[in-house]
Amino acid sequence: MLRTHTCGELRPEHIGQTVTLCGWVQRTRDKGGILWVDLRDRYGLTQLALEEGVETAEVREQARQLGREFVVCVTGKVAERHSKNDKMPTGGIEIRVEKLEVLNPAKLPPFLIEDDTDGGDDLRMKYRYLDLRRAPVRQNLMLRHRVAQATRRYLDGQEFIEVETPVLIKSTPEGARDFVVPSRMNPGEFYALPQSPQTFKQLLMVSGFDRYFQIVKCFRDEDLRADRQPEFTQIDCEMSFVEQEDILNTFEGLVQYLFREVKNLEIGELPRMTYADAMRYYGNDKPDTRFDMKFVELNDVVKGHGFPVFEAAGLVAGICATGAASYTRKQLDELTEYVKRPQIGATGLVYARVEADGSVKSSVDKFYGQEQLQQWKSAFNAQPGDLLLVLAGEPNKTRKALSELRLEMGQRLGLRDKDTFSALWVVDFPLLEYIEEEGRYFAMHHPFTSPKPEDVALLASPDTIGEVRANAYDMVINGVEVGGGSIRIHDRTVQAQMFGLLGFSPEEAQAQFGFLLDAFEYGAPPHGGIAFGFDRLCSLFGGADSIRDFIAFPKNNSGRDVMIDSPSQISDAQLKELSIKTDVVAGK
Amino acid sequence: MLRTHTCGELRPEHIGQTVTLCGWVQRTRDKGGILWVDLRDRYGLTQLALEEGVETAEVREQARQLGREFVVCVTGKVAERHSKNDKMPTGGIEIRVEKLEVLNPAKLPPFLIEDDTDGGDDLRMKYRYLDLRRAPVRQNLMLRHRVAQATRRYLDGQEFIEVETPVLIKSTPEGARDFVVPSRMNPGEFYALPQSPQTFKQLLMVSGFDRYFQIVKCFRDEDLRADRQPEFTQIDCEMSFVEQEDILNTFEGLVQYLFREVKNLEIGELPRMTYADAMRYYGNDKPDTRFDMKFVELNDVVKGHGFPVFEAAGLVAGICATGAASYTRKQLDELTEYVKRPQIGATGLVYARVEADGSVKSSVDKFYGQEQLQQWKSAFNAQPGDLLLVLAGEPNKTRKALSELRLEMGQRLGLRDKDTFSALWVVDFPLLEYIEEEGRYFAMHHPFTSPKPEDVALLASPDTIGEVRANAYDMVINGVEVGGGSIRIHDRTVQAQMFGLLGFSPEEAQAQFGFLLDAFEYGAPPHGGIAFGFDRLCSLFGGADSIRDFIAFPKNNSGRDVMIDSPSQISDAQLKELSIKTDVVAGK
Repeated sequence: MLRTHTCGELRPEHIGQTVTLCGWVQRTRDKGGILWVDLRDRYGLTQLALEEGVETAEVREQARQLGREFVVCVTGKVAERHSKNDKMPTGGIEIRVEKLEVLNPAKLPPFLIEDDTDGGDDLRMKYRYLDLRRAPVRQNLMLRHRVAQATRRYLDGQEFIEVETPVLIKSTPEGARDFVVPSRMNPGEFYALPQSPQTFKQLLMVSGFDRYFQIVKCFRDEDLRADRQPEFTQIDCEMSFVEQEDILNTFEGLVQYLFREVKNLEIGELPRMTYADAMRYYGNDKPDTRFDMKFVELNDVVKGHGFPVFEAAGLVAGICATGAASYTRKQLDELTEYVKRPQIGATGLVYARVEADGSVKSSVDKFYGQEQLQQWKSAFNAQPGDLLLVLAGEPNKTRKALSELRLEMGQRLGLRDKDTFSALWVVDFPLLEYIEEEGRYFAMHHPFTSPKPEDVALLASPDTIGEVRANAYDMVINGVEVGGGSIRIHDRTVQAQMFGLLGFSPEEAQAQFGFLLDAFEYGAPPHGGIAFGFDRLCSLFGGADSIRDFIAFPKNNSGRDVMIDSPSQISDAQLKELSIKTDVVAGK
Repeated sequence: MLRTHTCGELRPEHIGQTVTLCGWVQRTRDKGGILWVDLRDRYGLTQLALEEGVETAEVREQARQLGREFVVCVTGKVAERHSKNDKMPTGGIEIRVEKLEVLNPAKLPPFLIEDDTDGGDDLRMKYRYLDLRRAPVRQNLMLRHRVAQATRRYLDGQEFIEVETPVLIKSTPEGARDFVVPSRMNPGEFYALPQSPQTFKQLLMVSGFDRYFQIVKCFRDEDLRADRQPEFTQIDCEMSFVEQEDILNTFEGLVQYLFREVKNLEIGELPRMTYADAMRYYGNDKPDTRFDMKFVELNDVVKGHGFPVFEAAGLVAGICATGAASYTRKQLDELTEYVKRPQIGATGLVYARVEADGSVKSSVDKFYGQEQLQQWKSAFNAQPGDLLLVLAGEPNKTRKALSELRLEMGQRLGLRDKDTFSALWVVDFPLLEYIEEEGRYFAMHHPFTSPKPEDVALLASPDTIGEVRANAYDMVINGVEVGGGSIRIHDRTVQAQMFGLLGFSPEEAQAQFGFLLDAFEYGAPPHGGIAFGFDRLCSLFGGADSIRDFIAFPKNNSGRDVMIDSPSQISDAQLKELSIKTDVVAGK
């Protein structure tokens, strides 16, 4: 190695040793006849000192020429630091420089390489390799490394085998849009990149692998948002001879282990909540349970008093914001504006304050006397100082809007702390959901999910199909769906029936998934699994909202890597070899 | 879990316990009034017993209906086995079946699910999920899992951070053919799948990650051979502030660790051999050093004796096959035919036997008397009983042919045992090689490899460019190149010069690799790395010749996955969305 130590390693016990360090110049300053240089590498910062009359004029002159981000190699003696800095691990020492070599000079970076930078998003994406030098970004990726290694350690310890499944697979019509890859050797034909290794991991179960996992890249050609990337990573798992409860226990164990190893936190047992309860009490299949503020349904309490909005509503429901009775008129107007935004879609907001004396004052006093309002108070079990917020309208829309309002109030009241973690399982999802625009049912999880045995009879009639529950489950942490899975179908007839419900003809089902249907005839074990969104899990551990900060080289919202300028045009020779043409007119 | 134990777990100490096992029916037999069933899972085989008059008639009748590969769940008491089998871990016990449930029946498999199967390659590929049930194939993938976990453990322990680099990158003209992916959001433009994460790992070094690794899928759209797959896996590594020796030491450590952990073998220190010596003594840059049989050059010894073949040859060289003097005329004729094959290309084979009395008899006695032949013997340091095999011709071709002959003799003499491992480093590769057909130089390793500092001056003249050596190295085990790498260029000017030597105009270099050239201006540290062919490394550990056996779902020589029938046609709607058309006429 060019160095004897890293920049994070030296301590007072090294004083007197001659060492060599390599790294980047973080900053230089000349003060009181001493030239100070902060030298940085992945492991830390070390202070270099070059004092007039002590260090040689030559090496001092060299140091004076150093610019930010120069790469240097320095040799010198470890000495007690002039002014100790308890906040730095190396704050007890400095290096008295004897020899200094510039390994590579650097142009002035386009933005500050510091924890807080002055670089905008676009500039930092273009110079991602410089952005990655900043400690917060580097720490995100180091966290990701630790989560990955800990995941493998846990699963390996549970006899899971990591098996790589292919990246060049087959395009299927179900699910999101595929990325495709033209095949040169098979002209006119295309591979697809996997949206998940779903069918392959099921085949591994048919093969008897018993317990499989993989930390694996997956691909979806969807329109992008801040929190979506065309390529993303899953912790993909599957087990044989299990029931739902076995999977929940195994992966509850994984997440407990990860919190312990990575965050030094005990998150305890994960409660289980049915999908129906999640929708009823939180209006959301991924409830943020860091705070309570459950929905209270008020139809029985509020109807029959002549308030037209409530009389016309399919559902009147509200939340109780503890201690928010002091909200000003302005704040309440803000909340009203908030729920009336098109993406939330409520028509208005009714509120009621519980005063210090226990009386209730509402925005609908015209319709509700104190006696009725006391019934509201009871329904919420509200206390003096609480604020009741009530929405009304079509039930599903109202729940959705109230869920947003609940999250907003949680945010405003400081109940959504990034360092507090609340995890749970949401279970008993519906098997199918009807999409009006498409005029057919779609699998809520995916077409390989098994119905609950006790609900199978309901599949027979179109009237009850929508009521069938699946052996499907999501793990939710802090309102984020970090993982989801199901017990799979392992019977050819049931799988064929499912494809039928999803609108496949038997021929289409055979053409697309024949290999899986066939495999089920050769001794498929009962099996099930789960996949975790690895990028999202890491961002959750890191306390960030966006997955982008936890991906080394992310793409922007147009799917572009602006650093390498990809995608890009390819040569006509390449296109010809692949037997394809583009529809795009050259020069356009 | 549906089971209480696996099929590999029960021992005599479990006798008397009631257990439940799940697995596949390996075979059934009815003998002496007892019905025996071998139940199989990933963990082993357990014998079930159903005795007339002991187990119930009902469960015996159920068992009688079982076919091969049925998936069953059985409950019963662990009992002492009727006839113990020391060769099986569970050979001390059997299960007296009380309850039997068929979880899934199975059709008769298209080939035998046994260690030795009657299935041909094509059939086994089509039903890969059944082939994967066979113990040797499953063990290959379990070995692969162990190698991967051990690799991560070692590198994590050495402060390497696993960072995922993107799969959707940019097509580049250098190297093998890219797979490309049309971008829907950027019509007319394409991503490429990475042939390696080379530039990204270098950028991570520029970012200060210091030590990076990744076990990562890579892609090359090349014509396939048995030992090549369009998608393959690398252990990809890079380090900063190092010289070649540091990298060799670090990854020598990795391979020693893997042999220890996976094979329980100490392979010791890896010798270093220059490329020049490898070519001179083995005619091969990946010499199989499990056996010696080095080339001996004979020009000085054989010239001037009137044998036209030797007189005309640029190089006369041979090997000494220890103890092979007893080779019959027939065997020698076979060897002659062998070296004359077009792919080997020698024009003939000269041989000489060292007799028991020390005299030498050769196939060219007409030209060489005993005195000359004794000089041959001395040159080879040959002993009575040895066979000398000599080729002659143009030097490079002769070395190549003699290398093949050496490997063939090693094989025939049993010197290439799959359980013996000989690893070494080959170092000091040439930087560039001239490809006649293309009329230009190509990078022997890749365009990012740095020349040896002492050879840089040779780059200035076209006459000496070919002599420039690189800081490049390969790890070779048993004649297989398992890994290769180099110290990289970290200076923009040198990198630009290299692109120029490879025929890029400055504009082309900037368009293709501008991001890397730019990055070198912002403080790039000295760095270098290595990549191991992970599939090949696993096949080496497993003692197999083909990597295909170590890939769960490989493709055939036409790049097809015959199990899922991929690649395949995609819909016109998909093509339209991607702004591409195929040149292939429909229905063709």
